[in-house]
Amino acid sequence: MIRSNVAELLNSNNFLQEVTLKGWVRTFRANRFIAINDGSTINNIQCVVDFEKTEESILKRITTGAAISVKGTLTESQGKGQTVEIQVSEIEILGDSNPEEYPIQPKKHSFEFLRENAHLRIRTNTFSAVMRVRSALSFAVHKYFVENGFYNFHAPIITGSDAEGAGEMFNVSTLDKMNIPKNEDGEIDYTNDFFGKETNLTVSGQLEAETYAMALGKVYTFGPTFRAENSNTARHLAEFWMIEPEVAFNNLDDNMDLAEDFIKSVISYVLQNCKDDISFLDNRLTQEDKSKPAIERNEMSLIEKLNFVIDNNFKRVSYTEAIDILRNCKPNKKKKFQYIINEWGADLQSEHERYLVEKHFKCPVILFDYPANIKAFYMRLNDDGKTVRAMDVLFPSIGEIVGGSQREERLDVLQQKIAELNIDEKELWWYIDTRKFGTAVHSGFGLGFERLVQFTTGMSNIRDVIPYPRTPQNAEF
Amino acid sequence: MIRSNVAELLNSNNFLQEVTLKGWVRTFRANRFIAINDGSTINNIQCVVDFEKTEESILKRITTGAAISVKGTLTESQGKGQTVEIQVSEIEILGDSNPEEYPIQPKKHSFEFLRENAHLRIRTNTFSAVMRVRSALSFAVHKYFVENGFYNFHAPIITGSDAEGAGEMFNVSTLDKMNIPKNEDGEIDYTNDFFGKETNLTVSGQLEAETYAMALGKVYTFGPTFRAENSNTARHLAEFWMIEPEVAFNNLDDNMDLAEDFIKSVISYVLQNCKDDISFLDNRLTQEDKSKPAIERNEMSLIEKLNFVIDNNFKRVSYTEAIDILRNCKPNKKKKFQYIINEWGADLQSEHERYLVEKHFKCPVILFDYPANIKAFYMRLNDDGKTVRAMDVLFPSIGEIVGGSQREERLDVLQQKIAELNIDEKELWWYIDTRKFGTAVHSGFGLGFERLVQFTTGMSNIRDVIPYPRTPQNAEF
Repeated sequence: MIRSNVAELLNSNNFLQEVTLKGWVRTFRANRFIAINDGSTINNIQCVVDFEKTEESILKRITTGAAISVKGTLTESQGKGQTVEIQVSEIEILGDSNPEEYPIQPKKHSFEFLRENAHLRIRTNTFSAVMRVRSALSFAVHKYFVENGFYNFHAPIITGSDAEGAGEMFNVSTLDKMNIPKNEDGEIDYTNDFFGKETNLTVSGQLEAETYAMALGKVYTFGPTFRAENSNTARHLAEFWMIEPEVAFNNLDDNMDLAEDFIKSVISYVLQNCKDDISFLDNRLTQEDKSKPAIERNEMSLIEKLNFVIDNNFKRVSYTEAIDILRNCKPNKKKKFQYIINEWGADLQSEHERYLVEKHFKCPVILFDYPANIKAFYMRLNDDGKTVRAMDVLFPSIGEIVGGSQREERLDVLQQKIAELNIDEKELWWYIDTRKFGTAVHSGFGLGFERLVQFTTGMSNIRDVIPYPRTPQNAEF
Repeated sequence: MIRSNVAELLNSNNFLQEVTLKGWVRTFRANRFIAINDGSTINNIQCVVDFEKTEESILKRITTGAAISVKGTLTESQGKGQTVEIQVSEIEILGDSNPEEYPIQPKKHSFEFLRENAHLRIRTNTFSAVMRVRSALSFAVHKYFVENGFYNFHAPIITGSDAEGAGEMFNVSTLDKMNIPKNEDGEIDYTNDFFGKETNLTVSGQLEAETYAMALGKVYTFGPTFRAENSNTARHLAEFWMIEPEVAFNNLDDNMDLAEDFIKSVISYVLQNCKDDISFLDNRLTQEDKSKPAIERNEMSLIEKLNFVIDNNFKRVSYTEAIDILRNCKPNKKKKFQYIINEWGADLQSEHERYLVEKHFKCPVILFDYPANIKAFYMRLNDDGKTVRAMDVLFPSIGEIVGGSQREERLDVLQQKIAELNIDEKELWWYIDTRKFGTAVHSGFGLGFERLVQFTTGMSNIRDVIPYPRTPQNAEF
């Protein structure tokens, strides 16, 4: 007999069919009703055991977490809470789960406890829902880009160039740390390292993606990136997945259109394809809110928030306008901000971004045309000589979700900027080549995938939306 | 006017429409015919310039590699080799390409030269075709798994456990190599390293994927993996992408079915969706073959080879049968093999695998039930006590493309094996937990994505199927 899965059976009305199902026990009550889950859906299927015909020794082993195989008949359920159930004729215990030892009990565990058991937390409703949504989002990303004529580009992970300057890097090496070879000047001699030079983990695939966009037209990366920053916060990971589209001939307006359309598309996909998981997470958040003081509660439910993003235009505001708004807003005047905004040129902090999004505009915001000196060297200089064609997409709760720009396509302007910043031009010879040969306007952005998963699932800590989080002092599993 | 792309225009019969197109010049001949490519297809579109009405200074700048924008009318072409062309009314040079300096000339370049210019090689027909096929294969992978009820699982890249033993690892650290801290015993003190312990780049996401399969049922990874092996061959990379499905309740037969169905599905996808690119690569290989001595030529064209894999069952052969065949085959008896097969237990080399696939069975082969002592600790021991439920899928030309197994699900057998191999059980506490709590039969495999791209595109060197290859002494770009 072919093995069925729970999702299929719950949607079946082929009653009286004989079925075989394998999965894990979530609960067993009244020596009669087993709730089985196999990961195919957040929902369990009820399996009804005839305890009088079942050996006592078997019944004792039907415990939370045990793997079992059941054969039986699919029937309409008389009970509340489900439409179908399985009348079990045969049951086999595949793998026991000693209830005295099994860490995941059928009760509420703290997220902190579950992080320490990240190999088992996926067996809970919340984490299985989050990770199914993460998987669906991942597919939605690929689907969106492929359907829109983009090519997936695998950026290198180990990189010999560190010019991007997006953050602190992890060093990659095969040198024996007990015997670091040094040259005559007392410097580290990398000639015997694996790559014959110093290498690091990438902080962004953008520069390489640009080289591909200048031939394939539209490309995107979706891969891991790394920051060796000692940030122990609920929104930073040392290892995270990033999505970076790059499009030849797109200017900053096109880039904003792309970012907005992309985000709306992938969130729509999840709303359509993960109804049960999103509904569970929506309910979870609502319950969590009830235990909070009124002022900390969310104004919208999770589903309302997702629909709000899909249904509304992202407000596009220049940095200069944003500074005006912030300078004159109440929290600034009353010195409620930690960083007071006094003048044009200030770097915006999370508190300012959230004020703009959550209090002032009450919708996702795209800020653009930032001061050149707080942004990266590759961003296109505006005619005013002091701002660059940068953009950040800001979301409620999570802040910056996208950072992007039109790239500086003019060879002379780029070279001047590189010289000003004392970047070694030799490090970037290949990048500069793209401006020498057939250069053109182009734009792109980076979107931190985990922030998108956080937003879509309503999880407040970024460590809870990636299977095995890497953070300072933690690389367990 | 909305910008069109070459692929759309070549498929359009909406003649006399006014179009705008941006792209790069491939060739310019007779001061009249520009072949433009924009990456949307391997094909160029012919743009006809009225040279009498175009300034001499503009005509001079229409050189190979230059980025240009043209406006004009789409018309039926009178010339050979194309059905449509653009009668140009306006032309603008976006970015020059000095023909004296531009490395990519409209002629045949060696793959070695192009590897040194990996940022520009994507502007050639061969590499743009390969990378478009790579992108399509990547999407086909996600599509196959999602449509078959799998969840995408992002395995950690930085790992603190090195028990998998699949190969030499790259160390990841933020310690100052000029001042490695040591403890009282003179050992490296990792407490001040970023993660507080020694960490490496992953060689496989399998062990972590198993923990997820034991809750979500069916999962797959698709991400970068690393081997710090000094292998300077045409089939090894230090950084490569790997696909690793893992399925709860699947035994080895199910695992073979999955591998075969998966490979056939993704190759079919490419044949259907990359017709022009595959046709170009097929032709390229045929031309290349003509310059070879008859004995080295391929028996089948690329397209024939791809269809052959789709249309035929993979031959399933036990290791023991394979040894019998090899021991008695001509090249073994005549000592033509570098490694002579004398007895059961020998590890098979590439020459043996290729003999089985290319000479003996003449089709893809799945070898299974290997001797336990040449395979990894997590593979399920057979009742004979000396073989394990391992499988390798062997392909013509490239050899091993898939390695997998049914996993040892029995706690006691697994622990005994770990003890025998002197692996520290504490390192694997979380992996062992999956056998303690609700263990079940499960299986999975790993497929090296670049080998699949090699097979599908007919490229003989693995460095030519990944954008920026990482190999010993090479991490350029």
